[in-house]
Order: sequence, then C-alpha cells, then structure tokens
Amino acid sequence: MGVVVKLAGARDPKARLAPLVALVEEDMVHVNRIILDRARSNVELIPELARHLIDSGGKRLRPMLTLAAAKLCNYGDDGHVRLAASVEFMHTATLLHDDVVDESNLRRGKTAARLLWGNEASVLVGDFLLGQAFKMMVDVGSLGALRILSDAAAVIAEGEVMQLITAKNTETTEDDYLAVIDAKTAALFAAAAEVGAAVAERPKSEAAALRSYGRNLGLAFQLVDDALDYSGEPSMLGKSVGDDFREGMITLPVVLCYRRGTSTERAFWERTLKEGDSDDDDLAEAMRLMARHNALHDTMERARHYGSIARDALAIFPESEPKAALLETIEFCVDRPF
Amino acid sequence: MGVVVKLAGARDPKARLAPLVALVEEDMVHVNRIILDRARSNVELIPELARHLIDSGGKRLRPMLTLAAAKLCNYGDDGHVRLAASVEFMHTATLLHDDVVDESNLRRGKTAARLLWGNEASVLVGDFLLGQAFKMMVDVGSLGALRILSDAAAVIAEGEVMQLITAKNTETTEDDYLAVIDAKTAALFAAAAEVGAAVAERPKSEAAALRSYGRNLGLAFQLVDDALDYSGEPSMLGKSVGDDFREGMITLPVVLCYRRGTSTERAFWERTLKEGDSDDDDLAEAMRLMARHNALHDTMERARHYGSIARDALAIFPESEPKAALLETIEFCVDRPF
Repeated sequence: MGVVVKLAGARDPKARLAPLVALVEEDMVHVNRIILDRARSNVELIPELARHLIDSGGKRLRPMLTLAAAKLCNYGDDGHVRLAASVEFMHTATLLHDDVVDESNLRRGKTAARLLWGNEASVLVGDFLLGQAFKMMVDVGSLGALRILSDAAAVIAEGEVMQLITAKNTETTEDDYLAVIDAKTAALFAAAAEVGAAVAERPKSEAAALRSYGRNLGLAFQLVDDALDYSGEPSMLGKSVGDDFREGMITLPVVLCYRRGTSTERAFWERTLKEGDSDDDDLAEAMRLMARHNALHDTMERARHYGSIARDALAIFPESEPKAALLETIEFCVDRPF
Repeated sequence: MGVVVKLAGARDPKARLAPLVALVEEDMVHVNRIILDRARSNVELIPELARHLIDSGGKRLRPMLTLAAAKLCNYGDDGHVRLAASVEFMHTATLLHDDVVDESNLRRGKTAARLLWGNEASVLVGDFLLGQAFKMMVDVGSLGALRILSDAAAVIAEGEVMQLITAKNTETTEDDYLAVIDAKTAALFAAAAEVGAAVAERPKSEAAALRSYGRNLGLAFQLVDDALDYSGEPSMLGKSVGDDFREGMITLPVVLCYRRGTSTERAFWERTLKEGDSDDDDLAEAMRLMARHNALHDTMERARHYGSIARDALAIFPESEPKAALLETIEFCVDRPF
C-alpha cells in the first residue's frame, strides 16, 4: 500500500535539494547559531522545550528560502540571516500551537512537546518564540520585511481557525481546502521568499515574483504532504502513514475521494473521519479507495500545477546560481519522499 | 470576611480614574473603533470570539496609559491611537492564552471563551490578535515602539512560563513572585506607557521615566488584584472571591501567610494549594489566616510602595493635565475595589 504514488524519475530526491542547501550552507550556520541563541531564557523550561523541537530538525526549508531569495536579489548585508531565523521561529511557534489544537502525539518523529511538558507550556513557549521572532525582525530594521511577516502571522492564524472549522467536514470542497492551506501553509512560504526582496529593497515586481514563487511552492509542498500521509515510507516521513486519517483531517486526497465516491463510500468517509470511528482495516480501505479514484495521483498532479506556477513566477529573474537552486527546490517539493 | 482590607479614604474610587478617562475620551473612541475593525475576519469564528472578550470590556487601562503618555509627551500625530489598540490586543491575546493555561472558567465576569469555543479556538484567535497587533504597530512605522512592544511580548510569555513553574509551589519567595508579576503583568504596563514617549520621539530620560512609571504601576495593580481576590466584592470584581485560592495560585498574600505561619498552617497551605484539596470552609480558613498575619494589609502596603516609585518616576515632567491624570491613576490602582 505504501507505493501507491510512484515518484516519476525520483532517483535521489534529496539531490534536488542539494543546490539550495549548498547555496545557503554558510548562512545557515549563522541562522542555526541565532536560533539556539534566541531560544535561551533564564526560565529553564523555555530552552529545554524549544530545543526539543529545534534539535529534531526538520528540513529548515522556509529559512533557506529567505536566504536564497536574498541572494537572488543580490542582497549584500547580513539582515537576511536574522529574518531567516525569524521565519523559522514563526514556523516553530505555529507547530507548537498546532499540536495543542490537533492533540497530536508526534511531531517530526519525536513525542510532541505538549505530551512531555503539557499544553500550557506549548502555548506559552510558542508565544515566547513568536515574541523573539518579532524582536529579531525589529533588529533588522526593515519595515517592509516587518509588514510582510506580521501580515503572515495574522493570516496563518486565520488559516488555522479555518482548518478548525472545516475539520471533519467531509463536504469540504477543493476550493475551501485550498483556502485553508493557502493561509495556513503557503502564506509563510510566500512571506519567507518575499522578505528576501524586501530586505534587499528590490522593486515591487521582484518582491511580487518571489511572493508568488513562495506561495505556489507552499501549496505544492502541502499537497504532497497530504499525499505522503497515505503513501510515504514511515522511516522517511518521521511520522506514521495514516496520521491524518486517524486524526480525521480532511485533506485533498479525501476531498477527491469523497466527491468521486459512491454513496456507500461517502458513508465510509463520514463514519471514519466525521465520527472518528476508525481502525487499521479502515485505513487499508481508505487507501484502496484512493487507488480506485486516483486520488493520490491527482493530488500530485495538482501539486505539479502549482509547481509550474512557481517556476514561471521566477522567469523575470536572469539566470543565476540562486535562481537555479530555487527552481530545483520546486522539483524537490513535488517529487519528495519525505 | 469581605472587608479585611479597609480601603483607606476610598470614597469613590472610580473618581480617581475619572481624570484619565476624561483626558483620553476622544482618542478612546478611535481606539475602540479600531479594535472592532481589526477583530474582523472572513473566518466568522474570529470576530465572534474576539467580540465576546472585547464587549465584556474591562477597564482598558493599558491603552489609556499609552494615550495619556503620548499626550504627556506632546505627541501631535495619530499613531498613538493604533499603538493603544495594539497594546489592548496584546493584552487580549494574553488573556485568551492564559485561560487555556489556567483552565479558567470565568473571564471578566463572563464564561471564558475556551469553554464556549474550545481551547483550540482560544489559542488560535489569540495568535490572530497578536498578528493584528504587530500589523498595526508596523503601520505606525515607529521602530522604537516596535522594539518596546516586541520585547514586551517575549517577556510576558517568559513570565507566564515562570508562573507555570512556580504554580502550586508554596515555598515561592516574595522575590520569586515579584519576578513573575514583573514579567507577566508589569512588562505590558511599562511598554504601554513607554511607547507614548517612543512614538513622540522624546529623549531617553522621558522614555525611561514613563517605563518606570508603567512598570511600578503594573506591580501595584497586580498586588491589589491579588489582595482583592481574597477580599473584594464579587459584584465589582466580575469574578468570585477565592478564585485564585481554588485554582491553587500562589500570590503574595499566600507567600506572606505561608512564611509567617506555623507548621500546621503551612501544612494547610500545602494541602489546599499544592495538592488542590480544598472546599469553601478552607477558603474561610484561608481568609482567617490572612487576617491573623496581616497578609492582605501588607500586600496593600507593598502595592503602595510601588505606587510611590511610580509617582516619583514622573517627577521630571512639568505639571500638566496628563501628568495629573497619570498620578491620580496610581491612587486608583492602589485603592480600587475592582
């Protein structure tokens, strides 16, 4: 069941991220140092909990986008490094608050912080990291970057509330679902890329291009995430296959299956997701239905569509190493196994 | 038992707030309009939940401080209005997250939002309001004000985590407790007053004076709050007497009683607060112990001490209507019945 989505031509998907990683390697050393430094506090619980999440890694895709975007815009100073750290802190704060909201038990393959330190600590340490993120942005002193990232903070929260409302609603349309991931995921990708142009004080056209690149990359990234939850290799995902299903999350593969399904199949989705009555056999059945309706294949196709828009958004920039790395990152996002 | 603290000379304590209210009345109309406007969202749950809290009012003391401080500094533009609204949003976001952390059932005399809409919505709408607060600050464009308020955001979260750690610890010292309220309450009062000088681009000495005024006013305000929880009139408090006791909160009256008490009394505090095993008879006993050890009286004395520091902090400013209003606000804070 784990190979429903055959990744076309995915010889070594990590190789696709290599140009981006190489491009920003030096800057990322500084970003990681700032992240550890700004997670410090005399209140011991804060660095302890923050490091639990920070050490578990993750791909650090968002801060890398900020660094690469700044390079694409020939930015010559060092503000992009603190902005990249701010972006990662905003993301980490969202994860902490998300886990409280979703009642998740795993995050990046480790026990969710909320289970180790309690919901209270997750809420408050998230708030602390958000405060630190804004402090760093203020230090950089770019009002343009501050505007982009504070807008994103409000939009992400709106997206999370939207998701709360649409949760377990099997009648969610594809458009409803896109509105949710546009706010909850794509907004931070868009802001992460756009601040690269803002801090370099580039013209609006370049800022808009990077924003569009980031947004569409974020949509593609989230859609692939949705598909992987029903098809990936657990060892690479850092979480189990079927987590979304068990949590009753409505994602695009489900939206497609529900709309394309028979009334019996719809009753199945309502029982398992809306009413939350499901077991491992149900997960197997869900995966069979996804195969029958091509739901994962078509979710990946949708992801490729957004990937193409991201590619075209960058067309106004002349060829360069940063541009090549950002384009290859699209390929990674739509073709990744983790 | 409700009159343990006799409020010396408190004829009409509301009258003490009247000069401040009159001073900022016109600006507060704009602040209130901005607050309603910025709590809007296409995601219906957001304005619904935000208005539940906004309509229940509260004193709006913090935004009034920002407005009055700006007037004291002869600020001539309109940025102070949006900064005041930002301060109130930061406060509201903290209340929402606080309720999740404390598992509170009442807030400002109304059912806590978390009980009506769930913890998830309280976390996320708090995040949304915080995002909106930062957007408004960015609109004003004062990097000085942004620095002050983003610092405060991080410190407040640190204070909340500290409180989480000291919670139910009856051995908390007065210094430990002061560190908690310094961060969780006084930091926002300090920032609210200081941004008035920052937006008016006044010299450091005036910013520092307003910061010190706000900080000490905040400490006094919180200490009186602590005393009122064991002595106030429920109809004026908007909450029940004894809420802190029932939630096992360690506040200064408890710190004093515990330290001054016999070993039997200490065992009482450990059972009721640390182990959370208490009923109404225990609350009555707690109030008797507070009377025996002068705990409420001395908590009010401590509040007056910080009130005096706040008063002296403003001494560098020449006499004016805003100064008089800010000084009278100290009297309100140390002598208020609600």
